[in-house]
Amino acid sequence: MLNAVGRDIPEEVVKNTNKEIFKGVHYYDGYTYEKKGPKTKCVNRSGGDKLVDSIRDVLFKCGIKDGMTLSFHHHFRDGDYIVNMVMKEVHTLGIKDITICASSLGKAHDLLCDYIEDGTITDIQSSGVRGRVGQAISRGKLKGYAIMRSHGGRVRAIESGEVKIDIAFIGAPTCDDYGNCRGIGGVSNCGVLSYSMVDADYADKVVAITDCLVPFPNFPAHISMTKVDYVVEVDEIGNPEKIATGAAKPTTDMRKLMMADYCTQFVINTPYFKDGFSYQTGVGGASIASTISLAKVMKERDIRMGFGVGGLTKPMCDLLINGQVDCLLDTQDFDLDAVKSVENMKHFRISASEYANPFNKGAIVNKLDFVILATLEVDVNFNCNVVVGSDGVITGAQGGHPDTAAGAKCTVVLTPLLQGRTPAVCNEVTTVTTPGESIDVVITEYGIAINPARQDLIDCMKDVKLPFMTIEELRDIAYSIAGEPQKVAFDERVVGIIEGRDGTIMDVVRQVKI
Amino acid sequence: MLNAVGRDIPEEVVKNTNKEIFKGVHYYDGYTYEKKGPKTKCVNRSGGDKLVDSIRDVLFKCGIKDGMTLSFHHHFRDGDYIVNMVMKEVHTLGIKDITICASSLGKAHDLLCDYIEDGTITDIQSSGVRGRVGQAISRGKLKGYAIMRSHGGRVRAIESGEVKIDIAFIGAPTCDDYGNCRGIGGVSNCGVLSYSMVDADYADKVVAITDCLVPFPNFPAHISMTKVDYVVEVDEIGNPEKIATGAAKPTTDMRKLMMADYCTQFVINTPYFKDGFSYQTGVGGASIASTISLAKVMKERDIRMGFGVGGLTKPMCDLLINGQVDCLLDTQDFDLDAVKSVENMKHFRISASEYANPFNKGAIVNKLDFVILATLEVDVNFNCNVVVGSDGVITGAQGGHPDTAAGAKCTVVLTPLLQGRTPAVCNEVTTVTTPGESIDVVITEYGIAINPARQDLIDCMKDVKLPFMTIEELRDIAYSIAGEPQKVAFDERVVGIIEGRDGTIMDVVRQVKI
Repeated sequence: MLNAVGRDIPEEVVKNTNKEIFKGVHYYDGYTYEKKGPKTKCVNRSGGDKLVDSIRDVLFKCGIKDGMTLSFHHHFRDGDYIVNMVMKEVHTLGIKDITICASSLGKAHDLLCDYIEDGTITDIQSSGVRGRVGQAISRGKLKGYAIMRSHGGRVRAIESGEVKIDIAFIGAPTCDDYGNCRGIGGVSNCGVLSYSMVDADYADKVVAITDCLVPFPNFPAHISMTKVDYVVEVDEIGNPEKIATGAAKPTTDMRKLMMADYCTQFVINTPYFKDGFSYQTGVGGASIASTISLAKVMKERDIRMGFGVGGLTKPMCDLLINGQVDCLLDTQDFDLDAVKSVENMKHFRISASEYANPFNKGAIVNKLDFVILATLEVDVNFNCNVVVGSDGVITGAQGGHPDTAAGAKCTVVLTPLLQGRTPAVCNEVTTVTTPGESIDVVITEYGIAINPARQDLIDCMKDVKLPFMTIEELRDIAYSIAGEPQKVAFDERVVGIIEGRDGTIMDVVRQVKI
Repeated sequence: MLNAVGRDIPEEVVKNTNKEIFKGVHYYDGYTYEKKGPKTKCVNRSGGDKLVDSIRDVLFKCGIKDGMTLSFHHHFRDGDYIVNMVMKEVHTLGIKDITICASSLGKAHDLLCDYIEDGTITDIQSSGVRGRVGQAISRGKLKGYAIMRSHGGRVRAIESGEVKIDIAFIGAPTCDDYGNCRGIGGVSNCGVLSYSMVDADYADKVVAITDCLVPFPNFPAHISMTKVDYVVEVDEIGNPEKIATGAAKPTTDMRKLMMADYCTQFVINTPYFKDGFSYQTGVGGASIASTISLAKVMKERDIRMGFGVGGLTKPMCDLLINGQVDCLLDTQDFDLDAVKSVENMKHFRISASEYANPFNKGAIVNKLDFVILATLEVDVNFNCNVVVGSDGVITGAQGGHPDTAAGAKCTVVLTPLLQGRTPAVCNEVTTVTTPGESIDVVITEYGIAINPARQDLIDCMKDVKLPFMTIEELRDIAYSIAGEPQKVAFDERVVGIIEGRDGTIMDVVRQVKI
């Protein structure tokens, strides 16, 4: 079945998953549905606490058994200890057929490969998967499908009851004995707990795991005690130093700095660049550089940002310190400066639902003027791929990419024309993760292509001195340098599903030929 | 059917309401249930706002029709304009059979009597009802039952799906065009929006009504845009000056000051009075006076309060200003000083669920050491009545009375021995609203009675020089002064139901004979 981005979704997958195929970014605008009602075990006795001695004990208290769905959040990124800590105990107990429903998984979780091999884990739902787990999925090791959702799509899936979480585990930098959790104030801080808020709302059992038990009440609570069943104290929940590894490092790459400069020139020549504009950047090097370069122009022209959203990094937090933005809205902190900034009075925490859920009454992304994103590949239809490498192996995550792209008035994708020796602008992306309908402009170090659907933006740029060209011209340059890339050789078997933010099937990921 | 406080609940009422009879305060501790899933209309288009021109237009947009349930919050108390504003339009449209589900109703809503008379309103659910509406109910004007719930019980009723709200109206002191509401920052501030948070979570349609539209994003939002369908701007939402009328005035009554002094002496001689203790007072004159008197002892003995909860008033906020309490947890502001205090970094907003819901995973009330409450009547079984006057007419509200009494380690009730010429301590309260099981001590200006169930407290007070006596002795003094009060003459017809916080029937209120 061909979906709205021209991907042929196998009937069998549609049948197995009971999902619809993708029909367009705003197809579900105005759709009315009934959310799932979460299960709750009442606590109304006077006094008491919720402390449990160990992960093992809490698993018993939560009635751990084969086939359960366990959920996790990824605010510690490569420094996360919680997933492995819990899954080791689950494995030791000989539990099988677990579904992991994580907001994301990365290199910190390579250990899970063993548990995939031995059937402890049979299904994975995540924003994406970096590291060995991604390879294992692409090699067909997982019994079920890996379902990859955007941050907003994950909230939708949980709230709608599409996913039922049996036990949610929340790595809480601070927690009191009654379960009030915060992302700050402890020894291992991750800043916010935004992705886990929906888990706390909807999971049958909610376990807070902390390495810093603080006196009641731990307020303002990022996650309320009213949603937490048990609290477990452990030695260490994560290593904040590793939050900024991976994607979140600033760049010194001249190509990326050039793209950042093009981006800024583009942004400031749109009608949206005016006092009070709103802005988000991804965590890629060029995106971060573009924030720094934009800040300079804002200062020169005395233009203030109304609000910045993220996925936040130091350059965004610097805007707040320097009085260049009214406030920041935060779902995740990508470096320790951002973690620290959470203490700022105008640095506001938001839930993943507030951030990006397409199935609530309006998320922050709908109010974005600009979002600056990266991509692994973009094709001549402006479709982006941020999950699957050009070798066909799962190596990235949707994150907020499709959410912000759908919401923002002006969605800018920055990518070097070549990723290594492979054209990033191509005829057809390996996997569609963000539909071209949501992408307004692609900026490379060789040139800039505006989506023809955005004639208004093309008109704006008439007199702007930037190397504009068509997306096909960009592709041609890429192909002239590196040749047309050969299609990846996939097996027939579908191992992963790229879910649209509204729950439809955007694309499938097939097993790689080894 | 006799319930756990010895009240005979008519079979017919049990049948009509499908409720159980009250079985004890902590009967439902550990009970597991599935919450109701709210309906949501998705908004995921880019940009846009939620502004609607008028109340009338928004009623149409929400599909107003006969038989709907409309909900309101009462943070403006006697200064509320929202209920009348909305109900006038509903009435003008000729809509009938409306159920009002308010967090409370008072003298500001006398207008509703006309709409009860003409069938616009047929059912009322509220914490209680003061003013003419209470009289109308007690005189049998309402077609259905008036159901009176505690603040925590109301959250439970809505979350469990027992009440389905069709349209929730939120009087928002500030709001942006996308529905982010705050209780402060505007021209008519009420401080917090705690009671309406559950309405926003569960109503099919949620309307924010504001007299101060502010730029997006109105953060930190007390109620999130993700839960608001429409925003209507009006001239005035309420008169904050009238928040402190009625119950919330400080006292100069010597009897009350004497009770306050007894209360403080009692409190400081319990084992719970130590550094970090937690405390709540009601809004009665004696309760407020006891806070002031307790603050003096705290200062003398260098004892700090850990957290104060409320229903907050100036004396509680003064504790924060004077560094005598670590933080305040706020569901409602009873005077303008408390409204202003919401800006304080250690003055935290909590939802009514966090405050008092008996059907979540643990509310703040469970963590209270002391609560100081008032009552209209208390009987020899320590049962309290805070809703029905000694003339049998509904004239008060449950508020957080049964919630805090159930949760606190030490529940103190302050009452003058006589209310006017009527004994406040009596053989049997007119109506049971808070079960004696939750009441630990009754303090009057004539003497103090400890609940015999609290032998530990009796032991504590062995050497304390306070006029201790039995509750029967207190009653005897009252009766010796004013005579044994005659029972109120009621008709058979049940007009109101006093719901226990867990949804069981605590008592019924019958029509008064005129």
